Amino acid sequence: MSNIDQSIETRTFEVTQESIDQLINNIKSKNIEFINNQFNDLNPSDAAELLSNIPEKFRVKMLLIDGLQIKPEVIIELNNQLQKDILNKLPSDNIADIVNNLESDNALQVVTNLNEDKKIEVFEKIPTEDKNLIEEVLKAYPEGSAARIMQTEYCAVPKNWSVGETIDYLRETEELPKEFLQIFVVDENNRPLGSVSSSRVLRNPRDKKMQEIMDEAQLLIHGDWEKEQVGYLFEEYNLVSAGVIDKNNKLIGMITADDILTVLKESTEEDAFKLAGVQDEEITDSAVKITKKRFIWLTINLFTAVIASYVIGFFDGNIEKVVALAILMPIVASMGGNAATQTLTVTVRLIATKSLTSENLFKIINKEFFVGFFNGILFSFITGLFVYFWFYDFKLSLLIGVSMIINMACAGFSGIAIPVILDRFKIDPAVASTVFVTTVTDVVGFVSFLGLAGFFLGI
Amino acid sequence: MSNIDQSIETRTFEVTQESIDQLINNIKSKNIEFINNQFNDLNPSDAAELLSNIPEKFRVKMLLIDGLQIKPEVIIELNNQLQKDILNKLPSDNIADIVNNLESDNALQVVTNLNEDKKIEVFEKIPTEDKNLIEEVLKAYPEGSAARIMQTEYCAVPKNWSVGETIDYLRETEELPKEFLQIFVVDENNRPLGSVSSSRVLRNPRDKKMQEIMDEAQLLIHGDWEKEQVGYLFEEYNLVSAGVIDKNNKLIGMITADDILTVLKESTEEDAFKLAGVQDEEITDSAVKITKKRFIWLTINLFTAVIASYVIGFFDGNIEKVVALAILMPIVASMGGNAATQTLTVTVRLIATKSLTSENLFKIINKEFFVGFFNGILFSFITGLFVYFWFYDFKLSLLIGVSMIINMACAGFSGIAIPVILDRFKIDPAVASTVFVTTVTDVVGFVSFLGLAGFFLGI
Repeated sequence: MSNIDQSIETRTFEVTQESIDQLINNIKSKNIEFINNQFNDLNPSDAAELLSNIPEKFRVKMLLIDGLQIKPEVIIELNNQLQKDILNKLPSDNIADIVNNLESDNALQVVTNLNEDKKIEVFEKIPTEDKNLIEEVLKAYPEGSAARIMQTEYCAVPKNWSVGETIDYLRETEELPKEFLQIFVVDENNRPLGSVSSSRVLRNPRDKKMQEIMDEAQLLIHGDWEKEQVGYLFEEYNLVSAGVIDKNNKLIGMITADDILTVLKESTEEDAFKLAGVQDEEITDSAVKITKKRFIWLTINLFTAVIASYVIGFFDGNIEKVVALAILMPIVASMGGNAATQTLTVTVRLIATKSLTSENLFKIINKEFFVGFFNGILFSFITGLFVYFWFYDFKLSLLIGVSMIINMACAGFSGIAIPVILDRFKIDPAVASTVFVTTVTDVVGFVSFLGLAGFFLGI
Repeated sequence: MSNIDQSIETRTFEVTQESIDQLINNIKSKNIEFINNQFNDLNPSDAAELLSNIPEKFRVKMLLIDGLQIKPEVIIELNNQLQKDILNKLPSDNIADIVNNLESDNALQVVTNLNEDKKIEVFEKIPTEDKNLIEEVLKAYPEGSAARIMQTEYCAVPKNWSVGETIDYLRETEELPKEFLQIFVVDENNRPLGSVSSSRVLRNPRDKKMQEIMDEAQLLIHGDWEKEQVGYLFEEYNLVSAGVIDKNNKLIGMITADDILTVLKESTEEDAFKLAGVQDEEITDSAVKITKKRFIWLTINLFTAVIASYVIGFFDGNIEKVVALAILMPIVASMGGNAATQTLTVTVRLIATKSLTSENLFKIINKEFFVGFFNGILFSFITGLFVYFWFYDFKLSLLIGVSMIINMACAGFSGIAIPVILDRFKIDPAVASTVFVTTVTDVVGFVSFLGLAGFFLGI
C-alpha cells in the first residue's frame, strides 16, 4: 500500500520553520538547483503555500535568481495580491511562458494581474490567437463576471452524433481540455442543446445518439453574470460543471465546481471580513503593512465614537448631578449594538444570497423591528431589576428599561434598513453598514438614556 | 433555441407572494392534485424553497393531506432544521419510500434527522442490507465526519483491466451510481491504487491498461476526517471528487465537489454568524422564535456590559469631578473593541483554515500585538490632538493618548490569544471569543482611562 500512504503524505504537507530556513539559506547562497527541486517536488498548492511563507525580501531575491523554474500552476495557487506582486517582478519572457502553459481561465487570471506595461510586453510574446482570445474576454466581460473565471477549452459535438462517433472523436483529437466532466451537444451555430456527462457516455452503447441521452435542463451560465451569483447557483443546484454562453446563446466556455469552491469561499469570507473592517490580509504581511490596512477602518470608527461622545457632551449637566448615568450608559449602547450586529449579519447574508425580494422585504424589516422590540422588553425587565438592586432607585430602573426598549427596537430596524438602503444605492452593505448601524445605536442609546433622565429623575 | 431559454427559465424560479397565497388556498381546500403538480413542476431545489416559504401551520396541514407526493430530492434540499421538522411529521411509510429512493449520502442524512422512534419504524421498512450499511456508517463515524457526507455508491475496477473491459463493464452493469466523475482502480482487498477520470477513460484506446493511465497521487479522504477539513482540502487542491477510505485503507465511498460546496458555504457562513451571536435562523422563523434564538447571546453580552459598568463604578469619584471623563471614555473602549474585532475575525479564519501552526503561532501573536500597539500610537496622537481642541486640556489629551495605546495593544493581543486558547481547550473560538475579547477591551479601556485620570489630572 505504499502508493496510498505516499499520496496521502505528499498531500498533507505543512510548511515548517525548518523548511523555510533551509530555503532562505539556499536563496542567500543562490543554490538554484536546491530551490527548483524544493518547489518541483511539491504539489502546486503546497508549493504556493511555501512561497507565501518566505519573507518578502527573500522572495524577491529568489525571483531574480537566474534559472529559477517554478511551475505555472504554482503561480495560480497563490492568493491574488501575492500573485500580482510576484508576476510584476518576473521578466516578461518568464510570464509569457507561464501564460502559454496554462489553461485559458488561469492564463486570463495571470494577464489580469499584470500592470499595463508588463501586459503589453507579454502580449508580444504569446501566440496571436491566444492573445486575441484573452483580449476579447477582457473587453467583453467585466472583472468578477462568470466569463472571467471560465475556461474557454470545452468539449462539444453535433447533435446527430452517436456515442461511438463521440468516443472516436475524443480518442483522435489532440487539442481538447485535459479533463472534462461533460460533453456539450450543440447545433450548427454552436448553441448548446444539452449536455451529457462523461460517465453517461461511458455507460451507453456506441450506436446510441448523443441527443437521446443528453440532459436538456442543464443550467447555462451567461458570461456577464456575477461570479458570486454563479457560485450561488452551483451550490443551490448541486452542479459539478456548467457551460457558459454569450449574448447570442453560443457556447463560449465552461466552469467547473473546483473553481466555484474558491469563489464561494472567498465571497463568504470576504463578507465576514468586511463586516469587521478587515481588508485582504496575508499571513506573511508585516505588522506595519497590517497596521496600515486596518488604519482606515479604525479612523472611520473614531468618527463614530466621537459623534457618540459629542452626544454625551450635551448631557454633561445630568451626568454631573447623577454619576450613575455615566456608569450605566454603556449598557444601553452596548445592548443596542449587539442586537443590531445580529440583525446586520443575518441581513448581509440574505442580501448576498438574494433572499430578500420586493415581496418579502417589508415583512422581514417588520419582523426584525419586532425582534428588537421583544428583546428590548425582556431586557428592560432584566436590566431594570438589576439596576434597582444596585442603586435602589426605582426611577433609574424605569429610565434604563424605557431607553433599552427604544434602543433595541431601533437596533433591529436599522440593522436591516441600513444595509438594504446601502444595497439599493449600489454600496456594498458588508463594508459600510457597521459604521452607520453602530452610530445609530450609540446615539439613540445615549440620547434616550441621558435625555430622558431629566424627565424620569426630575433633574 | 427554446430548449435553452426554457431551461434557464426553469432554473431562475423566484418564490412570489402570489404563488405562496395560491398554494395556501389549495392547502385549505385540500386540492392535492394542484399541490402535487405545483411541486413536481419545479426543480427539487426550487420546490424546497417554495416549501420553506409556506408558513409553518399550513406546511404541517399540507403534510398531513392524503396522497401528497413530494420527490425525495426536495426533502434533501431543505435546510437541516426544516428537514428534521418535516420528516418527523411524515408517516414512516412515506419516509421509508424516501430513503429507498435516495442515494446513500442523502438517505443517511434523512435517517440522521429522524428521532429515535421514527428511526426504528423506518428501519423496519427498508431492505436489510441498506439498513445495515446505514447503521454501520452511523456507528463507525461521528456526525460531521467525511463518511457522513460520502456516497457509498462508487465505481471501481481491478488493476489489470483495460479501458475496453472497463467500458464494457460500465455498459453492462446495472447497479452503478447514476453519475461518477472518476473510476477507482483497486487491488484485491478493495484498496485504491489510483483513479482515472471518466473523461480520460473516454480518450484512451480500448487496449490501454487502466493502471497505466491512472493518477496515483489522487488525494484520499479518511472517513473520520472532519467534513470542514475535507472542504478545505477540496478547495486547496481544486478537486471535483475524491475517494473515501476506512482505517484499513479500503475504499468505502466517494465525495464530490457539489456536496463540498454546501459544506464550505455553511462552515464559512457559520463562523461569521457565530461571531455575531446568531444561531441557525430561517427566513420563515417568526419574530418570537428569532427573539428566543438571539436572547441567550444578548444575555451573555449583558453580563459583559455589566462588568464594564461595575468597573466604571469604581471611579465614580473621578467622573463626578471631571465630567469630560464620562464623555470621552466610550471612545477608548470602542477603539479597543474595534481593533480587537479585526484581529479576532482574522484569527478565527486562520484557525478554521488550519493556518496557525506551533511554528508560526508566537510570531503571529507577536505581530498582532504590535499591530494593536502601532495603531494605538497613531490614534493616541489623533485622539489626543482632537481632545485638546475640544477641551483645551493638555493633561486630558495625554491621558486619553496613553490609555488608547494600552487598550489597543491589549486588543491586538487578546484578539488572537483568546480564540487560540479557547481552541486549545476544544471550545469553538467563533462562538465564545467575542464575549471575552469585548470584556477585556471594555475593562482595560475604562480602567486605564479612568484609573490613570487620578495620576494625570491630579484628582
